[in-house]
Amino acid sequence: MPPQPKAVVLLSGGLDSATTAAIARSQGYALHALSIDYGQRHRFELAAAGRVAQSLGAAEHRTVRVDLAEMGGSALTDAIPVPQGRSASEMAGGIPVTYVPARNTVMLSVALGMAEVIGAADIWVGVNAVDYSGYPDCRPEYITAFERLANLATKAGVEGTLKFRIHAPLIDLTKADIIRRGAALGVDYSLTHTCYSPNPEDGAACGACDACQLRLQGFADAGLADPIHYFA
Amino acid sequence: MPPQPKAVVLLSGGLDSATTAAIARSQGYALHALSIDYGQRHRFELAAAGRVAQSLGAAEHRTVRVDLAEMGGSALTDAIPVPQGRSASEMAGGIPVTYVPARNTVMLSVALGMAEVIGAADIWVGVNAVDYSGYPDCRPEYITAFERLANLATKAGVEGTLKFRIHAPLIDLTKADIIRRGAALGVDYSLTHTCYSPNPEDGAACGACDACQLRLQGFADAGLADPIHYFA
Repeated sequence: MPPQPKAVVLLSGGLDSATTAAIARSQGYALHALSIDYGQRHRFELAAAGRVAQSLGAAEHRTVRVDLAEMGGSALTDAIPVPQGRSASEMAGGIPVTYVPARNTVMLSVALGMAEVIGAADIWVGVNAVDYSGYPDCRPEYITAFERLANLATKAGVEGTLKFRIHAPLIDLTKADIIRRGAALGVDYSLTHTCYSPNPEDGAACGACDACQLRLQGFADAGLADPIHYFA
Repeated sequence: MPPQPKAVVLLSGGLDSATTAAIARSQGYALHALSIDYGQRHRFELAAAGRVAQSLGAAEHRTVRVDLAEMGGSALTDAIPVPQGRSASEMAGGIPVTYVPARNTVMLSVALGMAEVIGAADIWVGVNAVDYSGYPDCRPEYITAFERLANLATKAGVEGTLKFRIHAPLIDLTKADIIRRGAALGVDYSLTHTCYSPNPEDGAACGACDACQLRLQGFADAGLADPIHYFA
């Protein structure tokens, strides 16, 4: 039997990256999970990433700290209030305040470094162009440009020992599609964390921020129950 | 008088990035220096970066920690011995052990995030394709690919409020050219740190590692004295 190919999977602890990891596993990859601790205001996401990695039988789970909070500029790392209770049309209006400058570029760069170190040609990331239509680094042309860069940027890419591929299997799926796909693959969504404004005591989701609303609507559209606890 | 344009300058504390910063300053940019603390084995570089930023009158100097040591894979972050006393032909033979996977991609990504936050279209980096011919991420085609990515990856790039440019003014210069250029611009090279294997007590340079040898040869070829102290 040939050795199982390795995949570096960016795992945030959220629903999208958990589904992405399950898809990679279903295609026969050994999962090498990578979480980026970018100075989030809450740590529940990283704890969720660890639970998800374990539940999917990942070969390893590394967390690399990148102190993006030093850069400022986003509600996710700064003290800017997270929007609550916005309508779908408000969310659709342009790039949201929760946008973190260059976040996916930083995360994919670290994933690329790890991939080269462990000899993985395949990097999986749960970016999505539908629900996050305002994020420039969630578009197919961005992913293509990064893949091209990856093969120019590295010893393995230039010497041809690894031909890096960036997999973004969720990129054109709706949230409901993602949840159906993950449910079919046995993803335990009770382990995931999505909320931007969780209860500081236990990490329970608020149900009102953009991320919670998209999640709840996705489960409703998929005809499934969201197994996590909401405090509001 | 129009406001001075801002430049994000990646400052390692070494000779190349100090020269790059001086070139940016000579072209009228306000310097916003950025150092990446990527888990180096020694801290003398970062201290040197602070001194260089101050001596060049930088508007600010930020240090962002990116724990690349978590990834492993290089003599600069791992416990692999740093080569000593290699000849120029040995150094020219392929990609050196001191190569850090995806380092420039990670550093430029963080610089891009900072640039977007502070409203700087111009990112300056001291990569050099001559002395580091083995590093894939020191080639012009890599810089061009990153610039393209930068304008796809960011809100400011996509909305057209900033047209990002990556400046690599040293890319085709020899070490002697770089030193002559910096000396003409008044760079105080006594503030810089180059050595891969410094004295752990005071950071004095070894004079024998690849980096020291390239530096010493560069000063010799430029007909100038290297003002730093070598312990060997």
